[in-house]
Amino acid sequence: MRFTSERRLGGGVLEREFTLGEIPGVLWTPEPAPEPVPLILLGHPGGLHWMRPRLEARARQSAEHGFASAAIELPGSGDRPRSETAEQARADLHRALAAGEPVAEETIDRLVLPLAEKAVPEWRAALDALLALPEIGGPVGFSGGVISIAVRLAAVEPRIAAAVLYAGSLIPRAVFEDARRVTVPLHVLLQWDDESNDRQASLDLFDAFGSEEKTLHANMGGHTGVPPFAGEEATRFFARHLK
Amino acid sequence: MRFTSERRLGGGVLEREFTLGEIPGVLWTPEPAPEPVPLILLGHPGGLHWMRPRLEARARQSAEHGFASAAIELPGSGDRPRSETAEQARADLHRALAAGEPVAEETIDRLVLPLAEKAVPEWRAALDALLALPEIGGPVGFSGGVISIAVRLAAVEPRIAAAVLYAGSLIPRAVFEDARRVTVPLHVLLQWDDESNDRQASLDLFDAFGSEEKTLHANMGGHTGVPPFAGEEATRFFARHLK
Repeated sequence: MRFTSERRLGGGVLEREFTLGEIPGVLWTPEPAPEPVPLILLGHPGGLHWMRPRLEARARQSAEHGFASAAIELPGSGDRPRSETAEQARADLHRALAAGEPVAEETIDRLVLPLAEKAVPEWRAALDALLALPEIGGPVGFSGGVISIAVRLAAVEPRIAAAVLYAGSLIPRAVFEDARRVTVPLHVLLQWDDESNDRQASLDLFDAFGSEEKTLHANMGGHTGVPPFAGEEATRFFARHLK
Repeated sequence: MRFTSERRLGGGVLEREFTLGEIPGVLWTPEPAPEPVPLILLGHPGGLHWMRPRLEARARQSAEHGFASAAIELPGSGDRPRSETAEQARADLHRALAAGEPVAEETIDRLVLPLAEKAVPEWRAALDALLALPEIGGPVGFSGGVISIAVRLAAVEPRIAAAVLYAGSLIPRAVFEDARRVTVPLHVLLQWDDESNDRQASLDLFDAFGSEEKTLHANMGGHTGVPPFAGEEATRFFARHLK
């Protein structure tokens, strides 16, 4: 892990860009922090540059609670090399959506599974590097992003202590199996009228999680319409579980 | 409205029992309260005496936010005269449940609709009396209790500004019609594994509400297992809408 830039955002947040091998990432830490702080991994749909303002806002909110935050670029997004398989699957997906046809399970598998298989070890490697920093302690939370990546990571990575998930569609069947193996406390956000989301699939996934403590917060509006109070509730969930 | 007893609970809460005609009730107000305060009507399943400890706990929590709380006994509960129709319907219900049979819609209608038809005007009369007290101002929220009473009251009583609903089963079809007419902000609690609750009916009811702002909070566990943090979230919902 190599830091490539450093900037103070004001309000006591230090922002550092880094690279982890080929993978670009950003780390936000609260200042001053006399003790090692908990860490929230910020999931996103891919495209760190495009997502940056929203990630910064989430990082600032976390820093107010004394948490560090970090994000890394997804495979095939931003400046990272595209995957031909994924591009082909994405084209098939858009063709089906444009034609108003149901999206074939096989297309979803081709689009999501290779992405999750590549992204999960990268998040784990980032976790190794981040937890080696003296200013980062733990516990670790994962928040948002591509739900299949988040679910698989929570299923296989014991250092993830709690997760905020953002219900989205295109969930491969294999991810329901991952969901049964998740046991950490979960806080799941569902936008009830999300145009790009299969509500029933989201409810089924919520039901599938093995966690004893899991909460579903459903709100009105579309994919990007999560109300501010719902974001604050998610932050309080982490405050309960990462301290 | 006639006050029949007065007691200080400590922590700045004045508790007064009252009667409204034949109907017993309890009012909790925060002290000191230099200005008229908002009011939360505390719904319950019937049986003020039996429910008293839980109602007191809810009233204390509301008082911390500067809200008054009040509850009245339901028709046919506590010392109030039983209804033969309701007792017969309740017996039919228990027979069906004991036999593991589905409960007939007609049984649900006989049990719930006359109760709601009687209870709703009583809550409205209580509201008239409570809002006439100099220490109570408004706005007014309704919280919990028999969901069919809460939904109908929210549909017909314009002084209800926001409601916390507790998803329960036995919802007559007519109440889905009431739900479409509800437009105030709603915060709906659903216990995901509630043994006495039809989860799908609760989700359908949530979908039916006409409110632009409605939030569903689903948590694990049975009917009485609402986690403490879910209660705090409901209180914050009122704090957002009744101030």
